[in-house]
Amino acid sequence: MSDDPYTIEFAENLSRDELEEGDRLAPAFDDNGLIPAIAQHAETREILMFAWMNSDALRRSIETGEAWYFSRSRNELWHKGDTSGQIQDIREIRTDCDQDVVLLSVVPRREGACHVGYRSCFYRSVRRGDDGTVSLIFEETEKVGT
Amino acid sequence: MSDDPYTIEFAENLSRDELEEGDRLAPAFDDNGLIPAIAQHAETREILMFAWMNSDALRRSIETGEAWYFSRSRNELWHKGDTSGQIQDIREIRTDCDQDVVLLSVVPRREGACHVGYRSCFYRSVRRGDDGTVSLIFEETEKVGT
Repeated sequence: MSDDPYTIEFAENLSRDELEEGDRLAPAFDDNGLIPAIAQHAETREILMFAWMNSDALRRSIETGEAWYFSRSRNELWHKGDTSGQIQDIREIRTDCDQDVVLLSVVPRREGACHVGYRSCFYRSVRRGDDGTVSLIFEETEKVGT
Repeated sequence: MSDDPYTIEFAENLSRDELEEGDRLAPAFDDNGLIPAIAQHAETREILMFAWMNSDALRRSIETGEAWYFSRSRNELWHKGDTSGQIQDIREIRTDCDQDVVLLSVVPRREGACHVGYRSCFYRSVRRGDDGTVSLIFEETEKVGT
């Protein structure tokens, strides 16, 4: 018996029709064993962050109802909010047509999601000037903490 | 002179502080020259799809105000909606803290975004049963066309 309580099993090798129109979860991890994960605020519907999950992170997220990711820079499982308190309680998990992305609908237990200090990682928009140059405009101006 | 009218130049090799807190757009394309792109409906705030852009796709999206992606399966630039009519008019483009993701706020000119026929590619949610098994539930039941 494994000590790992996160025992959810994913389907594999589904046909295209089963993958797209079926009811079995068969996450398509990439060559590095990772799948992109988008976190959206369940209430405001704001996109908070984008990260990656490996198989363990996805299983833990499903089992515990809190968002787990895989940190590519630290090469380790990452329980979001462990140090910041910005734990993400999951309201819903969705996957897309070919099951190579997951979308989490979350409520952060403490406001904020971005290590820079903003509410969302997507705090800047792209502006194209009349002269053809591009720049970034801050859409959030106050930091909420990290 | 180049025939390519999409001449926007991106910054490169910024310091971490310039990348995160600055006003210069320096998209961090991965080893394959791609960057993840999330498309969110500008009005409903529903996540419609997730795809990839190369440098050309991002420049064209900024210049034309319509979403261009890079199809990894076809290995070519992809003007979303060219065949389906589901052209995505871009209201806003954002990037994240380390500029390795872009978020498009769009209005599809014709309803729908998913090649399977649903309004959004994220038409299924993950349900965890009491017995520990997982399955997918259809959150959209009617196809709007492809």
